[in-house]
Amino acid sequence: MRRGKLLYAQSGGVTAVINATAAAVIETARAHGVKVYAARNGILGALREDLIDTSRETRATIAALDHTPGGAFGSCRYKLKSPEENPAEYKRLMDVLRAHDIRGFLYNGGNDSADTALKLSRLGREYGHELTCIGVPKTVDNDLTITDCCPGFGSVARYTALSVREASLDVASMSETSTKVFILEVMGRHAGWIAAAAGLAGEEADAPPHVILFPERSFEPEAFLARVKATVKRVGYCTVVASEGIRDAAGRLLSDTGTRDAFGHAQLGGVAPMLAQLVKERLDLKVHWAVPDYLQRSARHAASATDLAQAQAVGKAAVEYALKGMNAVMPVIVRERDAPYRWSIAPAPLARVANREKKMPARFLRRDGFGITSAARRYLAPLIHGEAAAPLGRDGLPVHAKLKMIAVGRKLPPWKAG
Amino acid sequence: MRRGKLLYAQSGGVTAVINATAAAVIETARAHGVKVYAARNGILGALREDLIDTSRETRATIAALDHTPGGAFGSCRYKLKSPEENPAEYKRLMDVLRAHDIRGFLYNGGNDSADTALKLSRLGREYGHELTCIGVPKTVDNDLTITDCCPGFGSVARYTALSVREASLDVASMSETSTKVFILEVMGRHAGWIAAAAGLAGEEADAPPHVILFPERSFEPEAFLARVKATVKRVGYCTVVASEGIRDAAGRLLSDTGTRDAFGHAQLGGVAPMLAQLVKERLDLKVHWAVPDYLQRSARHAASATDLAQAQAVGKAAVEYALKGMNAVMPVIVRERDAPYRWSIAPAPLARVANREKKMPARFLRRDGFGITSAARRYLAPLIHGEAAAPLGRDGLPVHAKLKMIAVGRKLPPWKAG
Repeated sequence: MRRGKLLYAQSGGVTAVINATAAAVIETARAHGVKVYAARNGILGALREDLIDTSRETRATIAALDHTPGGAFGSCRYKLKSPEENPAEYKRLMDVLRAHDIRGFLYNGGNDSADTALKLSRLGREYGHELTCIGVPKTVDNDLTITDCCPGFGSVARYTALSVREASLDVASMSETSTKVFILEVMGRHAGWIAAAAGLAGEEADAPPHVILFPERSFEPEAFLARVKATVKRVGYCTVVASEGIRDAAGRLLSDTGTRDAFGHAQLGGVAPMLAQLVKERLDLKVHWAVPDYLQRSARHAASATDLAQAQAVGKAAVEYALKGMNAVMPVIVRERDAPYRWSIAPAPLARVANREKKMPARFLRRDGFGITSAARRYLAPLIHGEAAAPLGRDGLPVHAKLKMIAVGRKLPPWKAG
Repeated sequence: MRRGKLLYAQSGGVTAVINATAAAVIETARAHGVKVYAARNGILGALREDLIDTSRETRATIAALDHTPGGAFGSCRYKLKSPEENPAEYKRLMDVLRAHDIRGFLYNGGNDSADTALKLSRLGREYGHELTCIGVPKTVDNDLTITDCCPGFGSVARYTALSVREASLDVASMSETSTKVFILEVMGRHAGWIAAAAGLAGEEADAPPHVILFPERSFEPEAFLARVKATVKRVGYCTVVASEGIRDAAGRLLSDTGTRDAFGHAQLGGVAPMLAQLVKERLDLKVHWAVPDYLQRSARHAASATDLAQAQAVGKAAVEYALKGMNAVMPVIVRERDAPYRWSIAPAPLARVANREKKMPARFLRRDGFGITSAARRYLAPLIHGEAAAPLGRDGLPVHAKLKMIAVGRKLPPWKAG
C-alpha cells in the first residue's frame, strides 16, 4: 500500500482472543514503522472520527491485550447499508481515512464486516484515495467460509467441552437422589459449531454429553424425550447440550423473544429452561439447566492455545497483506494436517467470504442427529488444544490490559448520521 | 480410635475440591497403615453396605482426585431422621460399621451432615461398637459456623469473580449498540457469600459488578431499577449479580419453582431471566443474562489454590483426629491473619456446627445493599488466591481420576428402607 497509517476496527460480537489479533496488528505494524489508529466502538468510531492513537500505548500494554477478553477498542453492531442506499456513510468513511492519511483499513469481524470491507475496498479509486481493505476473521460462531476455522471459536469450543466434562462429573456423582438431567444452552445462531464442540467432552459410549441438539436438525420433542429417558435409565443421568438456535419442524426458533438486533438477527436465549420444563413435565425427572451466555465467549482464562496462536497469526498477516497492497482480501486459516495438526495462513478474496455462512457439513452430524461423528472430532479436536496462559495479578485473578485510549485530534466536522 | 478401618462418605452438593479432601483422607490413612472404605453415593452406600475399597486404587489415581471435580465416590441428598424417629436406620449403620470393623466415620458435608455425624457419634457406646465420628467441612455455600470458611467456597468464589470480570469486559466493549445490562445469577440459597465474592471482580468506583443482590436484603424493584438506570447512564452498561435466593419484601423467593429436595429445601433457578424481563419492560434496555448453575461449583479448572490447600488440610486433619479418637469433632479453618493470609486447622465440636447456618455479617454489606464493604474484601480476598493447576490430557482438556470403584464383599442381608 501507499505509505500512510492503518486503521483497525473491531466489529460485532467479541471473543476471548480478538484482542490478541489487535495486539498482533499493532506489533506487526510497529515493527514495520507504521502507525495504527483504532476506531472506538468499531465502524461507528470511524464514521465519527473517534480514533485512538495506539502508538501512545506502551509495548507492555499492547502485549497484555493477548490475555484480555472483550473488545479493547470497543466493538459495535452496526451494519452499513450499501453505497447505493447510503452513499453519505461511505463518503464520510473515505473523508476520515483521507483526513488522517489512512491507507490501510483492517476490519476485524465476521461475514457482515467482510461485506463492509469489500464495499469499501471498491471505493478508493472512485474517491481518489488509494486504500487497501483487509477483512480480519473473528467469530465464535465459526461460520465464515473459506477459512478452516475462525479465531474465537477454538476458545469457546474449549470452554464448552471443558464445562460439559466438569459439570457432568458433578451431575453424575449426585444423580441417584438429585438432578437426573442437566441441560446446557450454548451460543450459535444458525450453525451448531459450538454445540458440536461440546461433543469433545467425551468419546466413549455413554460419556457426556449424551444428547446434543443442533440448529441443523429440527427439534422433535418426542424423539428428544425418548432419548433422554433411555439415557437416564441406562447411565443414571443425562447431559444435554442445546444450541440457542434450535427450531421446530416448522422452522420456528424454540425461543424467539421477538426482538431483533441491528443486523436483523433474532435475539435468542432461554432454550434451556424451556427444555427443562418439557423434561420435568413429561418425564417427571429432576432437571437443572445452565446458560453461560457471555461467560462462554469471554472465558479467556480457559482459552485454547491454538485459537490464540491463530488470532495472532491473522492479525500479523493482515498487516503484511495491507503493506503489500493486497486489497479486498482476508487472511484465512488453512489446515495442512489433522494430526499432528498443521496450519498456515493464506489470503482469500473478501468477495468469497462476504455475507456467506458456513454451515456444519452433514457428515459431522451423527445419523440420529444427537451427536457428532468421528469426522467432526478430527476437525474439532486440534482447535481446543492447549491452555493459553493468562498471568494472575496480586488479587489472584487474571490481569487485563488497561489502555490509555488517547484520542487522535479531529480534523473534520462532526458526523451526522443520515 | 480403636484399630480398625475408616469409612469416608460424601454428602450433599459436591464442589470443585471435595475430591481433594477425599484424596487427603486416603493418603493420610495409608501413611498410617489404615484402610479406608468409601460409601458409594454417600450415606446411602453406608446403609446399603455398598462400600468401595479405596486400597484397590493406585497412588496415582488417588492423587488425580486432587484435580477432579464432582464427588468421585458419589454423593446424595438424603437426610437421616433422628434416632428416635427412625432407630432402624441408625441400627443398620452401626451393623454395617461393626460388620466391617469400621472404627472411624468421616462424613464430608455441610451442616446437615454434621448433624448426622453428631447423632451417630453418640450411638457407639449404646450399640457396643466403639466409634469415632468426624465431620469434614464442605460446601460452596460457605454457611458452616465456627470454621472461618468452607472448602469448596473459595473455588466457586474465584470462578464467580473471574467470570464477572471477563464477561463485563465483553459487555463494556459492545454496550453502545448492544447489551446494556448483564445479569449473572449465582448460587447461595440463604446466604449471599457467593454473590459477595463477585464483588472481588473490581474495587474501583464504577468497576463491575455494579449491583449485587443479596438474599440478606429484601429485593426492592424500584430501588434496583433506579440503580441500574443510573449506572447505565453513568458507566454505559451495568453488570448485575443476583443470588438465586433473593426474596421480596414479604420474604417470598423471587423464583420458587414449587418443588423441594429431600432436605426440604426449595429448588431454585431462574432469578436472572425474571430480573432481565423486569429491566427490559421497565427500562427498555437490551439485557442479557447468564445462569452458570453447576458450572460454577464444578469449575475445577479455575479453582482457588487456597481452597484446594484447605480442602486437603481438613481431609488430613480428619484422619488424624479419628486416629486419636477425637469423637464428634470437625476440623475447621482458623484464620490467623488477613494479609499476608495465614490459616491453621483446629478441631471444633460437631454440636456447635450441626444444623446451624452462618449468615453473612451485616458489616460485610454496603449500606445501600448493592455491594460489599472493605471488611468483606479483607475476608474474601485471600480465599480466591492462586490458580490450582489441573494437568491437561492429550485432548487438551483437564484429566480426571478414573477410579476402579471395587466393591467390598457384603456381610449382611440387603437393607430395606423403613
